[in-house]
Amino acid sequence: MTSVSIIGGTGYTGSELLRLLANHSKIDEIEHITSRKESGNSILKIHPHLKSMGYDNLCFEDISLDNINSDVVFCATPHGASMSIVPQLYEKGIKVIDLSGDYRFEDISTYEEWYNLKHTGKLNAAYGLPELHRETIKKANLIANPGCFPTGAILSIAPLVEKGIIEERVIFDSKTGVSGAGVEASQTTHYPNVNENLKPYKLTNHRHTPEIEKELNKLVENSKNNMKVSFTPHLAPFTRGILTTAHTYLKEEYLSIAKDEIVEIYEKFYKNEHFVRIYDNDMVSLTGVRGSNFCDIAGFEVDRNGRLIVISAIDNLVKGASGQAIQNMNIIMGFDEKEGINYCGLKP
Amino acid sequence: MTSVSIIGGTGYTGSELLRLLANHSKIDEIEHITSRKESGNSILKIHPHLKSMGYDNLCFEDISLDNINSDVVFCATPHGASMSIVPQLYEKGIKVIDLSGDYRFEDISTYEEWYNLKHTGKLNAAYGLPELHRETIKKANLIANPGCFPTGAILSIAPLVEKGIIEERVIFDSKTGVSGAGVEASQTTHYPNVNENLKPYKLTNHRHTPEIEKELNKLVENSKNNMKVSFTPHLAPFTRGILTTAHTYLKEEYLSIAKDEIVEIYEKFYKNEHFVRIYDNDMVSLTGVRGSNFCDIAGFEVDRNGRLIVISAIDNLVKGASGQAIQNMNIIMGFDEKEGINYCGLKP
Amino acid sequence: MTSVSIIGGTGYTGSELLRLLANHSKIDEIEHITSRKESGNSILKIHPHLKSMGYDNLCFEDISLDNINSDVVFCATPHGASMSIVPQLYEKGIKVIDLSGDYRFEDISTYEEWYNLKHTGKLNAAYGLPELHRETIKKANLIANPGCFPTGAILSIAPLVEKGIIEERVIFDSKTGVSGAGVEASQTTHYPNVNENLKPYKLTNHRHTPEIEKELNKLVENSKNNMKVSFTPHLAPFTRGILTTAHTYLKEEYLSIAKDEIVEIYEKFYKNEHFVRIYDNDMVSLTGVRGSNFCDIAGFEVDRNGRLIVISAIDNLVKGASGQAIQNMNIIMGFDEKEGINYCGLKP
Amino acid sequence: MTSVSIIGGTGYTGSELLRLLANHSKIDEIEHITSRKESGNSILKIHPHLKSMGYDNLCFEDISLDNINSDVVFCATPHGASMSIVPQLYEKGIKVIDLSGDYRFEDISTYEEWYNLKHTGKLNAAYGLPELHRETIKKANLIANPGCFPTGAILSIAPLVEKGIIEERVIFDSKTGVSGAGVEASQTTHYPNVNENLKPYKLTNHRHTPEIEKELNKLVENSKNNMKVSFTPHLAPFTRGILTTAHTYLKEEYLSIAKDEIVEIYEKFYKNEHFVRIYDNDMVSLTGVRGSNFCDIAGFEVDRNGRLIVISAIDNLVKGASGQAIQNMNIIMGFDEKEGINYCGLKP
Repeated sequence: MTSVSIIGGTGYTGSELLRLLANHSKIDEIEHITSRKESGNSILKIHPHLKSMGYDNLCFEDISLDNINSDVVFCATPHGASMSIVPQLYEKGIKVIDLSGDYRFEDISTYEEWYNLKHTGKLNAAYGLPELHRETIKKANLIANPGCFPTGAILSIAPLVEKGIIEERVIFDSKTGVSGAGVEASQTTHYPNVNENLKPYKLTNHRHTPEIEKELNKLVENSKNNMKVSFTPHLAPFTRGILTTAHTYLKEEYLSIAKDEIVEIYEKFYKNEHFVRIYDNDMVSLTGVRGSNFCDIAGFEVDRNGRLIVISAIDNLVKGASGQAIQNMNIIMGFDEKEGINYCGLKP
Repeated sequence: MTSVSIIGGTGYTGSELLRLLANHSKIDEIEHITSRKESGNSILKIHPHLKSMGYDNLCFEDISLDNINSDVVFCATPHGASMSIVPQLYEKGIKVIDLSGDYRFEDISTYEEWYNLKHTGKLNAAYGLPELHRETIKKANLIANPGCFPTGAILSIAPLVEKGIIEERVIFDSKTGVSGAGVEASQTTHYPNVNENLKPYKLTNHRHTPEIEKELNKLVENSKNNMKVSFTPHLAPFTRGILTTAHTYLKEEYLSIAKDEIVEIYEKFYKNEHFVRIYDNDMVSLTGVRGSNFCDIAGFEVDRNGRLIVISAIDNLVKGASGQAIQNMNIIMGFDEKEGINYCGLKP
Repeated sequence: MTSVSIIGGTGYTGSELLRLLANHSKIDEIEHITSRKESGNSILKIHPHLKSMGYDNLCFEDISLDNINSDVVFCATPHGASMSIVPQLYEKGIKVIDLSGDYRFEDISTYEEWYNLKHTGKLNAAYGLPELHRETIKKANLIANPGCFPTGAILSIAPLVEKGIIEERVIFDSKTGVSGAGVEASQTTHYPNVNENLKPYKLTNHRHTPEIEKELNKLVENSKNNMKVSFTPHLAPFTRGILTTAHTYLKEEYLSIAKDEIVEIYEKFYKNEHFVRIYDNDMVSLTGVRGSNFCDIAGFEVDRNGRLIVISAIDNLVKGASGQAIQNMNIIMGFDEKEGINYCGLKP
Repeated sequence: MTSVSIIGGTGYTGSELLRLLANHSKIDEIEHITSRKESGNSILKIHPHLKSMGYDNLCFEDISLDNINSDVVFCATPHGASMSIVPQLYEKGIKVIDLSGDYRFEDISTYEEWYNLKHTGKLNAAYGLPELHRETIKKANLIANPGCFPTGAILSIAPLVEKGIIEERVIFDSKTGVSGAGVEASQTTHYPNVNENLKPYKLTNHRHTPEIEKELNKLVENSKNNMKVSFTPHLAPFTRGILTTAHTYLKEEYLSIAKDEIVEIYEKFYKNEHFVRIYDNDMVSLTGVRGSNFCDIAGFEVDRNGRLIVISAIDNLVKGASGQAIQNMNIIMGFDEKEGINYCGLKP
């Protein structure tokens, strides 16, 4: 049996790891779950909904990394914090799945520019989007778990980019639930400010932009980093989920493509992917993926101007974070990729 | 392996049965799922979120009861419809779990009075609240699955009633999510009518009242049906969950009871009950039981007037319907009672 | 023309005073609006929605009370703060409307007990519920504006109490929107904690309890402070509004009273009250009073146990605070009582 | 004094007309309000929140147009119905404000193509967007009140189009509240389908597209109908409001334009427009315009790819329908343009 530890266990991603691992047949133990602030306290103080799920004796610890000997460690730590933790675990030979942005860029300078942080140094990490990089992930000891917005955005148009039928400029207009802002209370998450409201934030410089762009560029044949990704997230009045509306324009020579042909491109591209589901637009909902590791994709319509619209729906905390992290663990540990995360959405 | 069928599979309870059974290790097959209106259609037409969960080839059927040979049949049929279906299955020796109100009353006249329907005749049914009637359920071939409100209301004060420390008059002020109104659209469920609103309906004559009352009376020593239950449900602006606020008055001789003693009464009463969790009030939330089979209980405070307040939280579609139905199936089939329903709430 | 000042203008009650005063025909000027923290800043920084409403040059000030010479001052200050501000204004002969709890109790010891504060000394204040105390308000220079919960609770059963037809024990089960918690962000108001959730807080010792009780006692003929009020508020997932469900029991001699007779009691009691509307239950909604100064009352049903249920709906920030404050100002200044607050709810 | 009638008064736009007209100082009477279905019933049956607002004796009528002699008639009738009603009123010399799409197109063939209806014949209507067409409106007897989405979309980028600094392709990604779907209940508006969800509908062929496009083309110097508008609305989980995110690309020669210069273009364009407010992004909210006739505009940021993003926020039922209709009435009747509609948003 396999033991895991979680670094930084008080947030929503830590909570979701525990929720999903509770029913994972290959995990018999959470060796350690760390928190400086809550050290010594039961995890039920912070995550009371996990009562009676096997964690009633599990406490947060403020522990030295030296003492961690799990097979797998999840770093549910913020950007900037992970890169001071991961190297030590990595060198011990522990398989590490990092949920922060610290190891997502092959090119450190892009990271440093967009995150405005000095990086501690590149490691040999795989970008943990299994649908695009499964073979690399299998061999990796460090997984950079993708950002929530990039997961939905990349999967939404990867088949179009690979097929080369859309122009270089793409716009992702994403709508995220409030859980994406984390567990800390702020004016941003103050109920009267969110409820009956919806609005964009980081209109032009969200750091997930280059993450999306570099992944799309990998799909372009003979890429010269042509893709020009514009990305704007909106905070919407629900708790979980990201709906991404991808606005793309067909290249002139593909203007007469039929919707069926577009759907076929998607179905072929994702034919072996359990966690990507292709839908008619009417059938997609955020509740359909709520609590689930699925990424649902729909749309595929072209208007008079040659604009091709595609939408994707994910749960930001599952496929956009902890579920995908477990999917990556399953891959690197040789488990069934679906183990512990094969749930449909909690709809309605 | 065990096969099950579902009569009436297009509603929310049918949907939830499918969602939970998809990961139930003892169920290998949905033999039949019926719908007159959707006969011949894939269940994915109505329940698209179940795609890739093992049901992609499952279709609704409009089938004669003669052709049903499952080990267990769930009747997810409305009040009044069940009693025209259940007898035939029951006589064939099939174990039946009926989610309607048709077999919940030992006394048919109470049913006929409150449901304003003529009953087709009493059968030997067990009231399927395992926390109170596990031994009876084990031996039963027909389970009357409790109503959603009664489940939360009865469990919230059963220990007090059994202990005999509260007066006969109790008031349940319940707040339910909109999924309790079913899948059909109506002015009641029209978003602009529900959102930013909350209000009582059936202020005084909800048919769950006598169901609660007769179960509480069973707990009274030498009962002469003394309990006087007043119950008022409110429609609240969320989708899942029932929060029941039980207002009771301590008998004069117990006015000096301490909160700790009350908590102890509950912990003792439910000490073997996995699906009942006792909490401090601050720790309870409807999201903590969302999608889960737990009934969380908190409160236990007494005010200057001797009013003792207790609250319970359940997911109306799970512990209040389909989850409890599977719990009952597990009991009558001799499975682990937690099999397939041992999930915590989807919080946040 | 009349000039007003607002002490403590950065919260929701300050915001609502400005919103309503902007269209009040008798008020030509906000002389001062104070805030220590935002002193010098435009009120639009905190209340951007008031742009172009006549306040574009209005700034918060941190000003000595000596310099305030308005005809009317609204104290939108918290409990405990008001009593250090009001006396000085009161002695200058300024008419003061205090929105805190500091002057709501004739009996200072009750205040000190429930608010756990030492009071600076009683003043001659009128309890500002016009429907019950209009004549006293007319002559007062200091108005203690009622609490939000007491407003809805008292109005909901005042006619029953005055008529003497209900027992002494009454239970108010109230459901409030999140704006009642104020503008400050906290775990309590963190969107993921509120959304899809609903739960009681201060189950038994909310300080609005004695405020309700003493007002109801005033309505009892030859009262010996008999009323035994139990009050429990719930935080519900909407922004504005309080729905109060009053559970009362009819005295034995009135058990056969018809619903029509009860409605008649209410219509008679409130026949001259513009801001109280009597409804059938189906017609009431929180949106129907949203942004409005109305208190809508419905219910009036009696169950088998003699329980009589009444509900009231108000906007906690309007009839429950700033709207009622302006209603009080209208009365003490001799304006038309409806001036500036005669709006229906923003429904849907 | 002026009398008005409303044709089709049971929907949300009828309701909002009544709400706003109740406090309009120039309107002393609703002469007639029509409804075939509710004929003879009090308007309070359908709009109970209007009780005590001056309409307690107003009933719906099923009346011949011959009998209508108001100064102004609002047609709150659906697309297709208006064109069978308006001509008769228009010929009698009554000033008509039509809230449907029937008279919004100078070019009937565009209407017929997008609405898939045969038109009864063009009349001399002014497109009722006062910020662009005030002088024309002043002289008109028939006003085609703009669509809700077009109002927010057109106003959001009109200054950019007139200035000629953006490319021809523009994308409007709009998010609307559920009240836009009207009062009738349907699966689309069923609470469990909307709540915790958000998704596009009419991805590519919404009929508001040509309405936006033709208005933008009017702003282009020497236009050859160059603008290529792509518009996709999303249904979002709130009741009121439309947030439109306009994605445009700067022409190459304007790539170095500063944000301040863009803001200046807007402030100049709208300098005399009371109902358009320019904001920093952080200051905009849908609650800030809820119940209000303001259109708030923000954004103005340019990203690495030359994409310029602008957002607008309106209340779909006010500036997007009934408020704008009253604004138009004020203009054609020579009233103060702000009369009866000068309210800020109901925030929070």
